[in-house]
Formats: sequence, structure tokens, C-alpha cells
Amino acid sequence: MTRAKNFNAGPAALPFAALERAQQELLDLGGTGMSVMEHSHRGKAYEAIHDEAIALVRELLSVPEGYEVLLLQGGASQQFALVPMNLLPPGKSADYVLTGAWSQKAYKEAKVLGTARVAATTEQDKKFQRIPSQAELQLDPSAAYVHITSNNTIFGTQYSSFPDTGAVPLVADMSSDIMWRPIDVSKFALIYAGAQKNLGPSGLAVVIVSQQLVEQGRSDIPAIFQYRTHAANKSLYNTPPTFGIYMLRNVLACYKEMGGLAAIEQRNRAKAKLVYDVIDARAELYRCPVEPESRSLMNVVFNLPTPELEAAFLAAAKKEGMEGLKGHRSVGGIRASLYNACEPAWCQALAEFMRAFPG
Amino acid sequence: MTRAKNFNAGPAALPFAALERAQQELLDLGGTGMSVMEHSHRGKAYEAIHDEAIALVRELLSVPEGYEVLLLQGGASQQFALVPMNLLPPGKSADYVLTGAWSQKAYKEAKVLGTARVAATTEQDKKFQRIPSQAELQLDPSAAYVHITSNNTIFGTQYSSFPDTGAVPLVADMSSDIMWRPIDVSKFALIYAGAQKNLGPSGLAVVIVSQQLVEQGRSDIPAIFQYRTHAANKSLYNTPPTFGIYMLRNVLACYKEMGGLAAIEQRNRAKAKLVYDVIDARAELYRCPVEPESRSLMNVVFNLPTPELEAAFLAAAKKEGMEGLKGHRSVGGIRASLYNACEPAWCQALAEFMRAFPG
Repeated sequence: MTRAKNFNAGPAALPFAALERAQQELLDLGGTGMSVMEHSHRGKAYEAIHDEAIALVRELLSVPEGYEVLLLQGGASQQFALVPMNLLPPGKSADYVLTGAWSQKAYKEAKVLGTARVAATTEQDKKFQRIPSQAELQLDPSAAYVHITSNNTIFGTQYSSFPDTGAVPLVADMSSDIMWRPIDVSKFALIYAGAQKNLGPSGLAVVIVSQQLVEQGRSDIPAIFQYRTHAANKSLYNTPPTFGIYMLRNVLACYKEMGGLAAIEQRNRAKAKLVYDVIDARAELYRCPVEPESRSLMNVVFNLPTPELEAAFLAAAKKEGMEGLKGHRSVGGIRASLYNACEPAWCQALAEFMRAFPG
Repeated sequence: MTRAKNFNAGPAALPFAALERAQQELLDLGGTGMSVMEHSHRGKAYEAIHDEAIALVRELLSVPEGYEVLLLQGGASQQFALVPMNLLPPGKSADYVLTGAWSQKAYKEAKVLGTARVAATTEQDKKFQRIPSQAELQLDPSAAYVHITSNNTIFGTQYSSFPDTGAVPLVADMSSDIMWRPIDVSKFALIYAGAQKNLGPSGLAVVIVSQQLVEQGRSDIPAIFQYRTHAANKSLYNTPPTFGIYMLRNVLACYKEMGGLAAIEQRNRAKAKLVYDVIDARAELYRCPVEPESRSLMNVVFNLPTPELEAAFLAAAKKEGMEGLKGHRSVGGIRASLYNACEPAWCQALAEFMRAFPG
């Protein structure tokens, strides 16, 4: 087989070794005569995988004591609702920093459930083409939390450093850039991420949350939606998405093998540089709408002078085995998603293609 | 490899052909050079699978016009909350028929969210060892809905015919027996099922719901939790659990190949008869606590005279390659789960083993 050069925005490329391992074991996990999908979530074979997945999240991100790692059903869209359900009691307000469509969705769900306000938005002046500065944030010092989206897949922006929210808990949707580099988890009260960009297949969310926040969470909501429930049961209160967690384990084992997040950061910076360098070198053909200091290293978005040239670009790229380069349907243009599992060789091929286009 | 005789209660055995297909395609779906897990949920390759899965649910269950088939994140435990969130408005009450631990959990979540009452329970007199008769149901004619659990995995009971709830919508958790035989879907307003018994891997719920109920559903809850949202977007509002839906498609394609649900019902009845016949023939050794007319054809539960004999039974069965026979930790004893993908040969082997035990 020829492996596609996969630039999908998510679900996205996974480490090939993680997939190969899954294929080898698919019918028979460790000589048990059963697929991992057929194992009980209460059995030893699965539980070892579950525990290893949680341990690898802790290890790779250096999750400090006092934090829970939860493996939950659903993706980030569900967390948009679960965060305010758990953390936004009546009489309190939550601050949302709007940097794109996903933070808008998170804000909208919060408003259904309680009081939420916009602490900053970059929609009006720049159509979400930048991340707001610390000085622009109008933070409510009594807010229940401040919510940010660390990377914006549609608009191609990313926080290069995180806001200081003082004593107010910082909640971050890191769906599209979790584990792209090491971070200081202790600066966050809660981090959540849908798995399908940097962690595994869709249908799984990883939540890293301070025990203090778990304890403070509302208890007058359904048990299944309380972080408390899952923290108390090691994410085995109900049947977890066992295959998704198995794949998470396989993916994280690859990250460890690659040298951990410091090595992955170097790799990711080099990959993104390959593409941005061509954009900057050929400014007559490629235009990245994002302000330079807000550029995402995960999702490189750019335009060509006309929609016709963009269509020709996509068609020619496809002939070279490059997939998933079409921009989000809401904004058009080109988008190359360079998540952890996107191979440096694919980025090299894309850069060469861009340098030569239209040939 | 030797395939285990898998009697797990869920996650449970899957059709081997569905797993083999997944293994063959795992690295390269249809020559695309990508795993199904790496495909965009908005791309043609995945969307064809998604559509086929929905079409197979409709075909196998003869889902009539006027019903939506939704493929949702999470399992039945999440539906315990979503049903009342959507369908139980303030000022209304919902009726719950309690036949075991899962219906109790569903009832408990409903009470957090609104007013719910018990229309019948078989807990007190018989420890959930039977399904209540129609005459026992104390139905509220103005209830928002009546909720039942069609099969009770822990207590080994199952509805052989469904209650008549008149004009009140009937909601059924069919997680552990959906598609074990043909049913008349039009008798139900909503059917939900976690996938991990008869449909696929964990992390996916299938919901079959009347369009009328979808339209009547509350709109003051988070968008992600409204059935309306998913019905309007063909279950592609957010990223669905794509691999789980792919496996659902594989499993349902096997069911079709097997001759559909009428053929599967015959097969399942024969399988359960093999085991129950031994229980009845050796009443001095095996005792099924369930009243005969309430016996489940999915989960056969029984006891031996002493815990020591039960432990010896489990140990000897394991030596014969039989897995998952231990009863639920809350009740003990033995449980053989004979879902659709449990092979007749495994049931034959179990029956022979039971006939010979202790040998």
C-alpha cells in the first residue's frame, strides 16, 4: 500500500506504528483469543491497557499531583456543556475568550446553562485572525473560570503563551494541540481534548482536572455528567470506549518512543517551518491571513489569489497523494493540519509541491 | 490462534467476520492509503460507511417512516440522562418500570432532572427475578413517557412481550437485546442501545426515535444533548465515533448475511435452549433464580449449591477456553451471555460441559 500524505484536520493521521500494532492484535489481544473490543472493561487484560493509557498521559504531560486524568465518552463538543454543568453554579459567571468557531460554540452552550460573558474576542476587528493579548482580556475577578481554546483549527491561530487569569481557574480546550509540546499543567484548572487530532480515534475525550475543581463541582446534575463520578471510578463508572482508549495507549506509547513531548515539539516546529517558509517566500502566490505571532503550528491556513487557483492547487496536490488540504467549509482556502502524527516527509513533500506550484 | 468461547456480558463477542474485515482494512480503507480512523467524518469514504450503518439499522429492524436513527457518542448510561433531559419538561412526570440495576440507574438520573415515579417494580418480592405483568403496571395516563429495560443483564430477565402503554410514549433501553429478533418498532416512541452487546464496540449508542418526539423535545438544553440536533444533522453535528460506527456497519452487514433478524432469532432461541435445558435437567446442581416466563435468552444466570462449587465450575470452564462466565459482582453466581455473536458451537460446548460437570 501507499500511505496517503494525510493533512486532515481531524479525525486525522495516526502514528503508523500505533495502527500496525492494532492490526496485529485486532483478532487476538495478547493470546487471549479475543479482540480488545471483545474484552470486558472489568477484566485484567483491558484494565492494564486503561491504566497504562492514564499513566502515559500523566507521564508525557508531567501531570502533577492533585490532578485527575479522566477518559470520557464523547468529544470536545460534549465538554462544551459539561464544563459549565459542573463548574458554573447559579449566581456565578464564567468568562469566555472567543478566538474562533469552537470557542463560540463552547460559549453558546455555557449560556444555555448559566451566566457567561465574553472576556475578549478577536472576531470583529480581524475575523479571528489573531489571539488576543493579555492586555485585551477583560477578566472578571469573581468568574467561576476563564475558558480558552488553545488552538483554532478553522482560523489557524494558536496561543504561543497562555493568559494569566490570577486566582480564577483557567479552563482550556486543547483538542487540536494537546501534547504538541510540553506544557505546565499546573497553570490550568482543567484541560480537555477530543482525541481525534493528537491522541487517537474520535469518540473519546481526555480531561485533566484539578481535584479541587472536581470536589467543588455541582452534585445536582446527572451522575454520568459529574467529573466527580468518573474521578471516583478511574473512568470505569460506565463502560468506557475501550477500543478508543486502547488506541490512545498505542498512540501515547509511540510518543514516548519518539522521545516524549520535547522531541515532538522540535519535530512539529520544523514541520510547520517548512510550510510557513514557502508561504513567506512566495507572498505573491500564498497569503496566510493570520498575524505572524498568532500562527498555529498545527493548522496552517492560507489562500491563493483566486478560488480557481485554490481548486487547481487542491487537485494537483491530490495527484501527489496529499489529502485533506481543503480549508474548512466556513472559510474556504487551503489548510494543512500538521498534528503530531503528520510525518515530516509529508510536510517536506508539501513544501516542495508549494514551491513548484503551478509548475 | 484459538478463539475464546466468549460469554462476556458486554463488551462482548463480535462476529468474527466483522473483526476480520476490520483487520484487513485497518491500515488502508478501500485503497485510500488511510485507516478508517484517519478519515475525515466529512469525507466521502467515511460518509458512505455512516450512511450504510444507518440504512442497515433501518433495514434489519424494519424501522418505519417517521422515525430517526441516531448514532450518538456515549452509551446507555448517557441516555439515562438524555431521555429525561429531552422528553421530561417541568410540570410533567415520567413512569419507570424497575426490573433491575440498570432501570434503577435510569430512574435515578430522571429524578435528578425532573419528576419520575415508579410504575412497577419487582425488587421487593422477588429481587428482580421476574418481569412484571401488564396488570401490575400502575401507569400514569398523563406521563411524559414510560421507561422500560427490555433485558436485564444482571438478573437474567427479559420482556417476552412489551407492555401496552396506551397513548403514553414507550421508551425502551434495549442495550442488551436489541436486534436479537425482529420487533415492531412502531410500538415504541424511543429505543436506545449502547452498542457493546449486540451492535459493536463500546462508545456508541444507537437511538431510534419518532420524529414527533424529536420535535416535541426540549430546546432549552445544550445543543449537543438535543436529539433534534443530531436528527437535523444525520448524526454528523459533531465528530461521531467513526471507528465504532464503522464496526457497527461491519456487524450489521454480518447480520444481514446471516439472514436477518428472523434467522438470528431462531439461532438465539436454539442457543439459549441448549443451556436452559441442562439447567432444568440437572436441577440438583443448577438453579436459575428467574421465573421461567421471564428468563432472558441473552443472559442465562444460574447458581450452583455452594460458592466453592461455583468457583470450581468457573475454573474448569476456563480450562476449556470459556471466558466471561462469572456472574455480575453484585449478585455472584454464573452468567452466560449469549448475544448474537456468541457462536452456537460455544453454547453447545458450554451445555456439554455443564452436563458433565464436575466430571
